[in-house]
Order: sequence, then structure tokens, then C-alpha cells
Amino acid sequence: MSEENSFLSGGTVTSPKGFVAGATYAGIKTYAKDKFDVGILLSNEPCVAAGVYTLNKFVSPSVTLTQQHMADASPRAAFVSSGIANTGVGEQGMIDASESVELAAGHVGIPIGEMTIGTTGVIGVELPMALIRSGIPSIKLTRDGGDAFARSIMTTDRVPKSVAVTVTCGGKSVTIGGCSKGSGMIHPNMATLLSYLTTDASVSKPFLQDSLRTAVDDTFNMVTIDGDMSTNDTVMLFANGAAGNRTIEAGTADAEAFAGALLVVCDHLARELVRDAEGSSKIFSARVEGAASIADARLAARAVAGSLLVKSAIHGNDPNWGRVVAAVGYSGAEVDVTKVSFFINNVAIMEAGTPISFHREAVIAIMNNPEVSLTVKLGLGDASAVAWGCELTEEYVQFNSAYTT
Amino acid sequence: MSEENSFLSGGTVTSPKGFVAGATYAGIKTYAKDKFDVGILLSNEPCVAAGVYTLNKFVSPSVTLTQQHMADASPRAAFVSSGIANTGVGEQGMIDASESVELAAGHVGIPIGEMTIGTTGVIGVELPMALIRSGIPSIKLTRDGGDAFARSIMTTDRVPKSVAVTVTCGGKSVTIGGCSKGSGMIHPNMATLLSYLTTDASVSKPFLQDSLRTAVDDTFNMVTIDGDMSTNDTVMLFANGAAGNRTIEAGTADAEAFAGALLVVCDHLARELVRDAEGSSKIFSARVEGAASIADARLAARAVAGSLLVKSAIHGNDPNWGRVVAAVGYSGAEVDVTKVSFFINNVAIMEAGTPISFHREAVIAIMNNPEVSLTVKLGLGDASAVAWGCELTEEYVQFNSAYTT
Repeated sequence: MSEENSFLSGGTVTSPKGFVAGATYAGIKTYAKDKFDVGILLSNEPCVAAGVYTLNKFVSPSVTLTQQHMADASPRAAFVSSGIANTGVGEQGMIDASESVELAAGHVGIPIGEMTIGTTGVIGVELPMALIRSGIPSIKLTRDGGDAFARSIMTTDRVPKSVAVTVTCGGKSVTIGGCSKGSGMIHPNMATLLSYLTTDASVSKPFLQDSLRTAVDDTFNMVTIDGDMSTNDTVMLFANGAAGNRTIEAGTADAEAFAGALLVVCDHLARELVRDAEGSSKIFSARVEGAASIADARLAARAVAGSLLVKSAIHGNDPNWGRVVAAVGYSGAEVDVTKVSFFINNVAIMEAGTPISFHREAVIAIMNNPEVSLTVKLGLGDASAVAWGCELTEEYVQFNSAYTT
Repeated sequence: MSEENSFLSGGTVTSPKGFVAGATYAGIKTYAKDKFDVGILLSNEPCVAAGVYTLNKFVSPSVTLTQQHMADASPRAAFVSSGIANTGVGEQGMIDASESVELAAGHVGIPIGEMTIGTTGVIGVELPMALIRSGIPSIKLTRDGGDAFARSIMTTDRVPKSVAVTVTCGGKSVTIGGCSKGSGMIHPNMATLLSYLTTDASVSKPFLQDSLRTAVDDTFNMVTIDGDMSTNDTVMLFANGAAGNRTIEAGTADAEAFAGALLVVCDHLARELVRDAEGSSKIFSARVEGAASIADARLAARAVAGSLLVKSAIHGNDPNWGRVVAAVGYSGAEVDVTKVSFFINNVAIMEAGTPISFHREAVIAIMNNPEVSLTVKLGLGDASAVAWGCELTEEYVQFNSAYTT
């Protein structure tokens, strides 16, 4: 994080000026009573908006409807509900998404086209519309409603995940806030990732979309592999210009400052997602340096972070580096075995394709930390990437073998 | 299996005429004392040979040396050792592979170029050559040594996996035998797959390679995804012509009969591999029908069989079909959500993209079998494929978090 960005204590999606949010208990999450399960996020003024969505072909109508509104209008609000994914329910899915959006837009007094929708939870069950109809009117939107909104998107998440940072753009202080949900293994991901980002900066629409795409590729997509996206993954970014800065355009110093701050927000949320994965109390970074290309660096870093055997080794504090280099080997990235070096928390384990002796007990002790770093140096170029993974635990298996039963 | 093929009771790699094998305890598998850990398989007569190898760029010198001998000569024998992978040890790996092959070839009295090598086990540890040097001379090759050979390639496998079938080609009865090892999760695979196949049929070299490639694609590669191959994966097929049949050439009825029998052998071994996966006592088939192409069918079937959440659901007898269709959705295969149907053991769960009511308790009871079938019908074409997966268990995590420590 550069010195220009500073984290706001207790920051949320309503930290930026002009945003309000709220949530209530509609009764959808029968497995988690007394938790918010419907929420609304709103900018009081019109917004420029950007979005990144799942590539899963078995896509939720909630995502499809949001994409339609993003194409046809300029959304400034999001309705969310958790507990039911609104996916795999045939034509009823779009009917229910449309009614939910209409009810939410009506409740806050904006055109239907300016409301988006995000749903997450069990697939194949219809949204309980009676509960949603009775829930929406009791959502009260306030300037400090960001925390309630963050809680309303949680499913098996253990803690809400919110953040906000400020950055100076063209002499004005602007704020970027965000929240995310997404438990499960994250990687290989099937749990839905929902993330809502807000800013009071004025940003041109093309640059807003570009900067979001870039930030997502470097953060959320390094914990959630593209090909493994869930049916409902959605990242939205609303910019309302309430900070009064001159509109940020690509290629300017303002753009660089804004993109840097957005990356900080997304990086923080992505790591929190991994940290909160089901059954896991330990995360690790898989850093790949010296790759021939950025695409190779990402492929290799993701393969390491996604390897079940690496995740198991992290759980057991097992410096089983063979699993790490083998994952790099099958990742598809260019590899010259004689140039590969590997480090666990900066302790050299392998150099130039040959293991070097290390103090085994010392490395095991190092691995017994809540965060472990694995670094692979390929020695082929200067591209690098970092992916994040969590340990694989017995609890994960227990949890996920009994999710719907 | 067609009626022309028949399984031989107790069949092994030495069931075909002219093959001998043997194994001994060299002391390499310190974690599994009193188990065979070096072995040799030999055809008494010259062979035509075919091989399929790992695509992992972090490849074992054992694989590289085998490929060199296959290119330069016509191998008819294999030396195997288990416990140490001979991978990730720098230049020493090729030195040790070469010495092992030389010793084994000398022991059985064939040119060095006719001997191949397969090693499996822990990565990053050098082969204990003193043990191998003292072990090889005590390997006695006999006509009933197939079982000992099958045991000598085991690592964490619980049981040896051998099979042999006979088939009539051009009026002669020919036999195909085989054995495999490969525990771990298999899929996503990091555990090494080693499989040795033998036949007394006379087969042209191009057709032998083609038929092996096809059989591997339909069987081993449907439990071990290409991209997830280990550093040492090797499938070898030796044909010595001792059955006296006319040489089998592509495009003939003989070729069809032989390819069919080879598929039966590989299919049997691949399923046994899944059944023997660490910590698992339950396997499932992921069948995809009605795909637009065979590539799509395979992609989708593998995605289902490889999904951690599906594996967890199988473990918990949880008819969580949303996880199955979501895996199909992210597989990369062409999908039209409105045409997807899904069945658990032939009970319809979803039709045309919409869930249909089913007797939940009955399906849970069905899933409580040692073998579960999941069938997805895409309704787009007539291509189909089957992949095999095993449940994900708490025991798997326990086992793999303490493999080297």
C-alpha cells in the first residue's frame, strides 16, 4: 500500500460520501437464524458503474438481469439476498429476480433500471418471494448501514468483510469502500463471490471498468480461478462523484492514484476471503517470480495455491516442496527445471532444480504460523504474480459433506 | 466388455506368453517395511513397445530416460522402484536412472537400450543407490512373478491392482495383462500413475501406439486430468508376438478386437485406481451425454468428477445437484441451461434446467452405496464421456498433511 492511501477505521461501503445502505431479516437463511439476509446499497446521486461477472454458463438470472441493467441504464443501487442462489430454477429465476429488483427500486424510489441484484446460497431452490416481499419494506437505509449490508450477503462466512481507504486525487480526498462474501474453499471456487465497491470519486466510465477489471484480475481472480467461478459471482463498483474531484480519466496521475487505492481495497478483501474459508485458520501466499510472462506467473501461482496436496501440506506444517514444484510443472507455465528455486518464508529449500539442505525442524516451526509464504523463482524472465490459498482441513470436508442435508 | 473378451482369474502382467517378472525388498520404502520396492518385468523375446508419459514440465529423469530408449531402441523390459520418485534432485537424477537401468539390464542379460525405468515416491530425495545395487541381483524373474511386480510399484496403494483378459485375433487367442499403481486423490492427480501392460499378440508399432493412446484417453486420463499429471506418470505396453497371430494392423477386425480388449484392461485398472484412493471407500461415475463434441463431454465429465464440493457431497450422501451442474457450467463445455437434465443413479433430479421433485430420503439411501452414478444430459449433440472420481474424506486430509513429516 502506498503512503497516499490510508485505511479508515471501521470503513465500509457507506464510508464514501453519498452512499446509504441497510439490511433486515427476511427469514431466508433458515440455517442461520437472526442474521441479515436481504439488503440494499444505494447512492443518493446518479452513478457511473462497472461490473465483473461469473463466466459460468450455468449462470444465475440475478447476474443476467444485472448485466442487462448495466447495459441499458446507469445503475446506482444493489439489492442483495443470501441463503438462496436463485440459480437452476428454470424460468422462475428471472421472474423472481425481476420482481425483487422492482420491489427494491420502488422501496428506495429510483427507476428499476438503476437497481441491480446479487443472490447467493443454495442452488435449485426458488427464492422465497413471500419473505422477500415482506422483508424489503423494512430495510432502512442509513449513512452507517454499510456493516449491515456486508452482513446481509454472508452465507457460511464467519465474519463480515468490509474496508475503506482514502486517497488524494487532484487535490481532493476521495474514498473507496467495499465489502465481500465468499466462503467455501474459494479455490477451487464454487462458493459465490459477491463484492460491492463504492467510491465518491468522479471517474470516467471506461476507466472505471478498466481499473475494476485490472484490480479483479490481480486480487479476486488470484483466489478464485476464472474457470472455477460459481454461478453467481459478481463484483460491482459504483462511483457517484460526490467528492467533487475532476473526473478521473485513463493515463493521468489521478488515474494511477485511484487504481492503486482500488487495488488496495480489492487485495484486502480477497485476502480476508481466503482467511475466512470454511474450516481454515491458515492462509498462504504462492508467489511466482522470474516467469517468462505475466500469464505464466499467474498460471503457476494459481496452480500452487490450488493444489490439494499443497493445501494439505500447509495444514500439516509439512515442508513437502516436491508438491509445490510439481504443481508449477503441470500449471502450463514455461519451466526450465534446472533454473527453479523455491523458498518457504524466505528460507531457501531448492536452488537451480536441486534441493539444498535446510533445517527441517526450523522450517516446520516457521510453517506453524497463521500465514505462510511460498516463493518459486523460475529464472526465465521478470514477470511475477501472487495467488492466495488456504489450508485444507478435516473440518472443510465435514462441513461440505453436509451442506444441504 | 464384449463377449469376445474374458477375464483371467488371477491375471497379471505375466499372464501373456513369454513374459517373466520378479521383485524384492531393497529397503527403499522405509514407511512400509516388508514390501517389495524394486522389480523387473521382461519379455523373453524382442518386443514392439508403446508408451504414454506425463506432460509435467518438472519431469522425472526416469521418464526422460525411458523416452530416450523408446526412441532409440525397442525396449522389452522395465525396471521399477517405489518409495523415491527420482525427481527434483538435479543432475543426480539422470545418473541414478542410468545406473539403475544398466544394472537391471545386466541382471537379465539384455542390451541397456531395451530396459526402461519407472520410479515413484517422494520428490527431492536421491535414489538410495546402495540399496538398489544390492537389491537388483536378488530379483528372480519367473512366469508367475506378475503379482510381485505389481506390488513392487505400490506406494500408498492399499491393494495391488492386476488384471488380464484374453481375446481372439485372427483365430488365435491372445492375452493382454496389466498392473497399475497410483494412490493419492488421483484427481486432481499428483500421485504418480504407473501402469505396465503386456500382450503376447503381434501388433504393428504404429497401431500399438495408437491403440494405447486411445485407451489411455478414455480411461486413465478420465481419472487423471492431463494438466494435473505427476512428475513420473508412465503407461507402457509391451507386445512380444508369442501368441503367433498374424501382426495386427490398423483398420482390421483384429485391430478392433485388440483395441476393445485393451480398453477393457485399462478401464478395469483405472477404476481400481479410483477405488483405492487414499482414505476413500466410495467411487462415483460422472457421465455426460448429449454433448456437442467429445472434447466437451470429457471436459464436463472431468469437471464433475474433479469438483471438491461434488466429492464432499458424495462422501456425505448429499444429493446436492447444484454443485454438479455448476461444475458442468464452469467446465468450458458448451451448455444451454434450459436443456440440462441430471440423474443420480437413474433417478431424475433435474429436467430442462428445472429441478423436479424427488424423494429426497430415497436418493440419500441410493447414494449410500459404494458406487454412485451421476449423469448429466446436455441435450446438444450425441457425444458422451465418463469420468471417475472418489469421495473426499477427512482421512484424505489427515493422510496428506503428514506424508513426509
